[in-house]
Amino acid sequence: MEGQIGAVMFRELSGVGEALQALMEHCSNWPSDRKLPLEEAVGSILARDVLAPEDLPSFNRAAMDGYAVFSSSTRGASPSQPLLLKDALPVRTGSAVPDGYDAVAMLEDTVPAEGGIEIICTLPPFRNLSRIGEDVGKGDVVLPAGRRLRPPDLALLAALGLEEVLVRGTPRVAIIPTGSELVDRRARPKAGQAREINSLMASQYVEMWGGAACTTRIVPDSPEQISEALRGSVGSSLILTIGGTSVGEKDFVPPLLARRGELLFHGLRLTPGKPTAIGVLDKVPVVCLPGYPVAALAALYLLVRPAVQRLAQRDDPLRHKEAVLSGKVPSRPGYLTWARVSCKGGRAQPIMTSGSGILSSVARADGFVIVPEDREGLDQGETVRIWMLE
Amino acid sequence: MEGQIGAVMFRELSGVGEALQALMEHCSNWPSDRKLPLEEAVGSILARDVLAPEDLPSFNRAAMDGYAVFSSSTRGASPSQPLLLKDALPVRTGSAVPDGYDAVAMLEDTVPAEGGIEIICTLPPFRNLSRIGEDVGKGDVVLPAGRRLRPPDLALLAALGLEEVLVRGTPRVAIIPTGSELVDRRARPKAGQAREINSLMASQYVEMWGGAACTTRIVPDSPEQISEALRGSVGSSLILTIGGTSVGEKDFVPPLLARRGELLFHGLRLTPGKPTAIGVLDKVPVVCLPGYPVAALAALYLLVRPAVQRLAQRDDPLRHKEAVLSGKVPSRPGYLTWARVSCKGGRAQPIMTSGSGILSSVARADGFVIVPEDREGLDQGETVRIWMLE
Repeated sequence: MEGQIGAVMFRELSGVGEALQALMEHCSNWPSDRKLPLEEAVGSILARDVLAPEDLPSFNRAAMDGYAVFSSSTRGASPSQPLLLKDALPVRTGSAVPDGYDAVAMLEDTVPAEGGIEIICTLPPFRNLSRIGEDVGKGDVVLPAGRRLRPPDLALLAALGLEEVLVRGTPRVAIIPTGSELVDRRARPKAGQAREINSLMASQYVEMWGGAACTTRIVPDSPEQISEALRGSVGSSLILTIGGTSVGEKDFVPPLLARRGELLFHGLRLTPGKPTAIGVLDKVPVVCLPGYPVAALAALYLLVRPAVQRLAQRDDPLRHKEAVLSGKVPSRPGYLTWARVSCKGGRAQPIMTSGSGILSSVARADGFVIVPEDREGLDQGETVRIWMLE
Repeated sequence: MEGQIGAVMFRELSGVGEALQALMEHCSNWPSDRKLPLEEAVGSILARDVLAPEDLPSFNRAAMDGYAVFSSSTRGASPSQPLLLKDALPVRTGSAVPDGYDAVAMLEDTVPAEGGIEIICTLPPFRNLSRIGEDVGKGDVVLPAGRRLRPPDLALLAALGLEEVLVRGTPRVAIIPTGSELVDRRARPKAGQAREINSLMASQYVEMWGGAACTTRIVPDSPEQISEALRGSVGSSLILTIGGTSVGEKDFVPPLLARRGELLFHGLRLTPGKPTAIGVLDKVPVVCLPGYPVAALAALYLLVRPAVQRLAQRDDPLRHKEAVLSGKVPSRPGYLTWARVSCKGGRAQPIMTSGSGILSSVARADGFVIVPEDREGLDQGETVRIWMLE
């Protein structure tokens, strides 16, 4: 029976930190910038500084309902010494104040009078009046490159008459699910078969984190077909394979990556997630995710999220909070341990499971804690940082 | 000139807290639940508990590459006393373990031998084997009603063979921009006209917060046309009007709401945002937003966000952090003041502006602080909570 199953041990395990660093260094296939209409640009990253094409406001604008006045004509007015203004013009908030008029008197500071109004206070120039260019001057940088566009930013661009905006492109992320035992998730699996579900999880995360996911068909454990799928994905900014990453004789993905491109790391001191590999194929970074869903999830959060965010030129922090552990978190010594917890108030309950195939453990989890390589578990009562699952 | 412009003062101003409470009490037009395919359901709220339609795994599954064995046959095995197993079957991670076999020996615990393999350790039952139903038992509640669906949740549903999921519907929010001075934002305004931009901002926020925005055409300051627009929006879960909310003679929206439905509050102790109104029309809650963009933004965050989230049956916390003020935040005594700040590291810089028409002040802001009614500003050096703009 010798030779039926290949090498059974990873030759050398690498730390998650060094693997991530190498992966990030290869994430430089920036997608091209693209123009988007304003109503589709929320959340996108501005590619260039936006300069104001015109003044805002583009005319002297009343900031109050009241009367446009010449401020000089109000000099000396007070409640005890009102002044008659014959040339005051009624204006509404937002309406244009004609040339020459340089202030707006609020209604409560005026009294209707024969032949005009009486003003009961002295107005300095530009009181209650938005001058041309007061909000934005023509040529000003209104939004800087790199800004993640929010609704009021879009409103500002719209106010300046802009209809489109140049934003950074969305990195295309190829997702290649592998495994002869897998069937489409809509099909009924026979014994020994399993529904392919990891690509659904991975693609949803890729989109959430700023990429455009492109999932191939399920590729069986065939070196030729895996090679073909890898080759077909080389136009992407990032390639994710799923499954076939361990060291069994049918685990073809890392050896193929080594042959066709470069295998940078295979086997991480990460649990779950040890059989993760990282490589490069025609300058495209490749992350080989383990087929076990929880292991895939750990690698998605620790490696793929930063990579997609970098390619999308985003830097959204992962939400976190501090909580007190209401139980011990066991860990594997020498490994970075990715442990699921449920949270209630300021307390976090570790979720115990028997393996990285147990997806329901994730359904019960609100977040995860990281046990560093040099710690032997985390103690009950310890205050830890909980990273929230998105 | 008397009568040209109507009442100039709000009769009575209300607190933001009581206005919000009344608004929330009227937010009960829950949209109908709807079925979504899994790949479109991320971020949606589960309408009912999901029960597992089958066991997961649906067969005894190998959790390791190795050999399926009868655990009883390994009893007493040790490195110094290996036992020959003639009926061990090679299995791969994830493959089916035939009936009767109740454990999987890892490759490293076996030695190839004449007529079979030798096992060098004793395996308890179910070692390295995922039993039928171990992850999820048929009939178990796998995800509870109210859960906001995340990618691994969808993967779990897919693993159980589900293709669709019943989620809570998306509340329709009608947005009615009003003002005779407004032109479509793609048109070139003449003097005294302004591009209508608030509906872009409001609609983007409504969608971000969980609603479906439906913006009407720009409605001029005409009681008939405003009434018609309000009537046409009564099928919505929430109505937002923008502009015409003050107390000038052309500010028709609140009086019309009072006549056709119920005006609950008009004029809030909120700055910017005083001319905000809240009412109900045929059981549909209505928020009348001021036309000044910064005032509209304050009311969007303080009133509309909680209302949309409630109607969407969501409760996403607004991101916040603590920071030290690097300057004084002035406030209007007796008013809740909504002040923009820019953040760098742990420091927050107040953004000084001359008015609520200054949209560029928001473009420079990272978040806002709230100065309570009973405070006279916030002091330089004070540690405050910054609510991050989305």
